[in-house]
Amino acid sequence: MNAEIIAIGSELLTPFRQDTNSLHLTAKLNELGVEVDFKTVVGDRKPDLVGAARIAFSRAHIIIFMGGLGPTEDDLTREAVAEALGLELKRDPEIGAALFAFFASRKVKMPENNLRQADVIAGAEVLKNPRGTAPGQFLETQYEGRQRLIMLLPGPPREILPMFDQQCMERLNARVLAHHIATRVLKIAMIGESDADRRAAPIYTQHTDVQTTILASTGGEVQLHLRTQAPTQEEAQERVDSLASLLEDEFDEAMFSTRGESLEQIVGYYLQMRGATLAAAESCTGGMLSERITSVAGSSRYFLGGAVVYDNSLKTSMADVPPLMIAEHGAVSREVATALAEGIRKRCKATLGVGITGIAGPGGGTEQKPVGLVFHAVSDGTTTDVVERRFPGDRDRVRHWASQQALDMIRRKLM
Amino acid sequence: MNAEIIAIGSELLTPFRQDTNSLHLTAKLNELGVEVDFKTVVGDRKPDLVGAARIAFSRAHIIIFMGGLGPTEDDLTREAVAEALGLELKRDPEIGAALFAFFASRKVKMPENNLRQADVIAGAEVLKNPRGTAPGQFLETQYEGRQRLIMLLPGPPREILPMFDQQCMERLNARVLAHHIATRVLKIAMIGESDADRRAAPIYTQHTDVQTTILASTGGEVQLHLRTQAPTQEEAQERVDSLASLLEDEFDEAMFSTRGESLEQIVGYYLQMRGATLAAAESCTGGMLSERITSVAGSSRYFLGGAVVYDNSLKTSMADVPPLMIAEHGAVSREVATALAEGIRKRCKATLGVGITGIAGPGGGTEQKPVGLVFHAVSDGTTTDVVERRFPGDRDRVRHWASQQALDMIRRKLM
Repeated sequence: MNAEIIAIGSELLTPFRQDTNSLHLTAKLNELGVEVDFKTVVGDRKPDLVGAARIAFSRAHIIIFMGGLGPTEDDLTREAVAEALGLELKRDPEIGAALFAFFASRKVKMPENNLRQADVIAGAEVLKNPRGTAPGQFLETQYEGRQRLIMLLPGPPREILPMFDQQCMERLNARVLAHHIATRVLKIAMIGESDADRRAAPIYTQHTDVQTTILASTGGEVQLHLRTQAPTQEEAQERVDSLASLLEDEFDEAMFSTRGESLEQIVGYYLQMRGATLAAAESCTGGMLSERITSVAGSSRYFLGGAVVYDNSLKTSMADVPPLMIAEHGAVSREVATALAEGIRKRCKATLGVGITGIAGPGGGTEQKPVGLVFHAVSDGTTTDVVERRFPGDRDRVRHWASQQALDMIRRKLM
Repeated sequence: MNAEIIAIGSELLTPFRQDTNSLHLTAKLNELGVEVDFKTVVGDRKPDLVGAARIAFSRAHIIIFMGGLGPTEDDLTREAVAEALGLELKRDPEIGAALFAFFASRKVKMPENNLRQADVIAGAEVLKNPRGTAPGQFLETQYEGRQRLIMLLPGPPREILPMFDQQCMERLNARVLAHHIATRVLKIAMIGESDADRRAAPIYTQHTDVQTTILASTGGEVQLHLRTQAPTQEEAQERVDSLASLLEDEFDEAMFSTRGESLEQIVGYYLQMRGATLAAAESCTGGMLSERITSVAGSSRYFLGGAVVYDNSLKTSMADVPPLMIAEHGAVSREVATALAEGIRKRCKATLGVGITGIAGPGGGTEQKPVGLVFHAVSDGTTTDVVERRFPGDRDRVRHWASQQALDMIRRKLM
């Protein structure tokens, strides 16, 4: 069974806004064994909307409309879907009464056109919306002789996502003969996408019963997404697991996660497992490493903090880098990275200290020290590992790569 | 004239990946006065692709295909578009020779199927791709008696974006009768979307010749996008400018940007204008404020750095917060926020110091100090402003709001 997701709203056709609800809906539909074959974005013009609805009814079994259910003149999803199906809209007295009650409770007179939200396509079930005034609709019907499951859902994420999870999934589940799906997400640090594919392809192409997708993220991470369908859950799981273990063997230590965890989470697990703490002194990443580490809930158990040493005077006053060392080797140097890691470790009384210094660009590069050059150091008080890298890309990309490199070095130090 | 953008690739129909190229292309098309009326995402199956192409040719003047131009069996855009148009594919000897040369320079034998990238739809111009092996195609043709402009472009952003800007825009410009477009982006800090709309709507609804879109971003920022078309550039500009100045009057100091600049950039401008420097001591934001400030190129001119004082001992050792104060009032308190701002200012010898302490959640909340409670302080050595806020949402949202609040306080302090 396949699905089409249609996002409605002229704002989604501007350069500023993008539908993101469909990613969540796709994940849930995949759980049921339903593939999304098409996604469409269409504006608020009724003929465009009726046309897009007819196209979707002709090519997908499950059709989900998102948005255009509000009270304004621009909200035309109900009318357009009814017209495309040749069905009538009926005003639901219960929804109408609830709308009146909602406005009365706020002591506001209800504008007349709010009642349009009570219009329901003939035969549709009403889906309650505890977080907004526009209810959803679920309709099982025929289109040109074929069975179709049609949903009209509100656009705002905080309304559609719980409505879909709590009200649509059970209705879909009852109607869709579920296949059993198993997935695995494997993540690799500091290897390029084409290198990763060159090493992974000879393995996954031997396992055509598992669908393998390679994704590269901003700066130093490649993900392998494995997915299969089988008659039983055990069989599906066994298939992805056996492919996963072959890929684990191939990538060995570079594969930091085999269950989808982020690198920040993995570093957190290791630190807790070792009863260790961490402190960071960041120059070119300007706080990005600390921000990523503290994005994990509970990170206060192992992350003490540290310093953002953008100005050279702070490298000395906050992390005890000798001024002479900076004068001799420059702020962007192997020596200063080492001193930052060792200095911040002592200052914060942490098990591990990490130091980053580099040139994020676009300005500040020289022939000897070009934009993208970054030194990373991790110290445990006994030894200090230093890695010099030259990263490609713009300021944001260089900073991402550098924070990823530092996280990966912390992970390896703890392994 | 209208356009449809079609993104091709099964990975774009997973929960993990999303087309983002279309946002850039939409911005450029809008500059030419072309509206994007439809966006479609379709997988790598040829019948789906041929069907989507025919639908697009029937409803849009400009049709842009992105992706599916590579050498593999899954790359079917060329074949599908040719089939939908009833045109032939011809192998271009020049592209073929370039492919051979590319592989020869890497001392690799070219796999036979790479030659598919040399297939060009009859009548199409070839668009060079200096960043990849798959060239693009630009075709002006008829579909069912109507003029159509069709582009086949590669999927990776680093290939498609320069190709579109440098090769498609001039070709489009020559063929599209350009209207004159003017836009303005106004940004407001720390006001909710519905409040902003309630205040803005009475103004912009009086100006129906300007299209106004309200967008809310993660945590404390609302944007008003104004856009109009007119016979001359002056007339278009005058229209958006006059609406912008009415909205500026309404929002007054809360409107931090009237030309699209980010809050980080505005804070940077003000600091440079005043010849001032800044240092930050962050607890719950864990480096996010520093990371945002240093995301601006050239921020080393005014941002000195500071400390991430996650652990209480660091609040004392890095920013001189008296331990007794923490014991008496708790780490999350008005007093500690103030001491962080004043302490980090002195330590770093900065003009301004900023301190943030709060409970980002999900754990750590109590009845007196619930999740979302954050204290922000900004000190200039004479006075220290403190703001207590209780932010809604999850960990990421609370941290975003808190960093936004702090940036807005720095801006107001400098105004």
